[in-house]
Amino acid sequence: MNDIRERDFTVGEVPGVLWSPASAPEGTPLILMGHGGGNHKKSPAMTGRAELLVNRGGFHVAVIDAPGHGDRPRTAHDEQEIAELYRARAAGEPEGPIVVRYNAHLAARAVPEWHATLDTLQKLPEIGPEAPVGYYGLNMGTAIGIPLVAADSRIKAAVFGQHWPDALTEHARRITVPIEFAMQWHDEHIPRASALALFDAFASKEKTLHANAGRHKELPRFEADSAVRFFSRHLSSPSSRQPS
Amino acid sequence: MNDIRERDFTVGEVPGVLWSPASAPEGTPLILMGHGGGNHKKSPAMTGRAELLVNRGGFHVAVIDAPGHGDRPRTAHDEQEIAELYRARAAGEPEGPIVVRYNAHLAARAVPEWHATLDTLQKLPEIGPEAPVGYYGLNMGTAIGIPLVAADSRIKAAVFGQHWPDALTEHARRITVPIEFAMQWHDEHIPRASALALFDAFASKEKTLHANAGRHKELPRFEADSAVRFFSRHLSSPSSRQPS
Repeated sequence: MNDIRERDFTVGEVPGVLWSPASAPEGTPLILMGHGGGNHKKSPAMTGRAELLVNRGGFHVAVIDAPGHGDRPRTAHDEQEIAELYRARAAGEPEGPIVVRYNAHLAARAVPEWHATLDTLQKLPEIGPEAPVGYYGLNMGTAIGIPLVAADSRIKAAVFGQHWPDALTEHARRITVPIEFAMQWHDEHIPRASALALFDAFASKEKTLHANAGRHKELPRFEADSAVRFFSRHLSSPSSRQPS
Repeated sequence: MNDIRERDFTVGEVPGVLWSPASAPEGTPLILMGHGGGNHKKSPAMTGRAELLVNRGGFHVAVIDAPGHGDRPRTAHDEQEIAELYRARAAGEPEGPIVVRYNAHLAARAVPEWHATLDTLQKLPEIGPEAPVGYYGLNMGTAIGIPLVAADSRIKAAVFGQHWPDALTEHARRITVPIEFAMQWHDEHIPRASALALFDAFASKEKTLHANAGRHKELPRFEADSAVRFFSRHLSSPSSRQPS
């Protein structure tokens, strides 16, 4: 990633990475990104989105490894749930019930870690307590992000998508910041009505659903471009905003 | 509209306007735009979208007055249906049934007019038969546009939205070109399930639904920016495409 400053950090036991533009003026927004299940902070989806956010949006971008992911150890419970997920997949059983309950468990562990990470990042002089903060996470990144955004009033805009509503609806009802939400119209895992119900649950006055034809893993790449524009609209000062 | 070339034209009895960039290279795409009910070819929604399409997309843009609209005479049937619509509105009755049937009537008159208009525009040397063609119309522009795009294989991409499916579903099922479709999540006229059913009906492999919080007339302006990017993705040659 040319011209992007990359800094690894740890907060407590949690490893993370902060990407920043070579030069970031005061008030540069910070986007927290949550990675997907089975993935990690420097997976291609994270580095690709970070590059867009830094180069086109001019944002700081931070990602931490979720519990049991990336450079973090798995607990016996993690191992058990992952084995159960693989077993269900191999047997052709729906994976939703396992993903929903395991991601809810991970969210309960991850939300306090994100609070502490944001505390730490806000102590950096180039970020500080005044930089606008956004959150961007799909799949497991949404399962962790919805409870996080509901609980942390420092986060002022969020891009979510591709999850079941079961464990998330009550949190979504407490979210009032602008939301962009992505779903796949022919998702083979998440029923269409479930995805629509989760979008419907957000209390946000400004919320946008992007539903694209295709299966779960066929989310179009242009949705990442859309996320950059969304954060620019809501977090960047008008003078620093690029034309949409 | 600075640096935009505006030409009025008529095809048979139908008045239209063609907006073009000051300089348009060979192969510049042509976007046909359909205006909304009670509106006309040079209404602010049309001139505003045309300005974006010409200046940001580098497209030609053509709009014609729909039957009974703008500079065109109303028939006795037009007068009767419009009176009936105003009566229903004043009485607080749902306007859907009247809009659906009147727009279907207008579409039957307008589709042959659009075929003839496109024939004529393709005879202009700076457009020609090879220029990629798109269609962009919401509300009544969708009621006319869906039967048009289903019937005219010259149109290769379309942006629609904000209409009832009743008279349109069968046409939508025959459309296979890429589609972007806008709906309002809290539309007081068009039931949510009806809007979703119309989006679902398109046979297009590439289709995107944009659903925004808000009532019928609160469609966000950034959806017009999105339409420009959509046509650029699908109609512009890679070399002439602007970054999304």
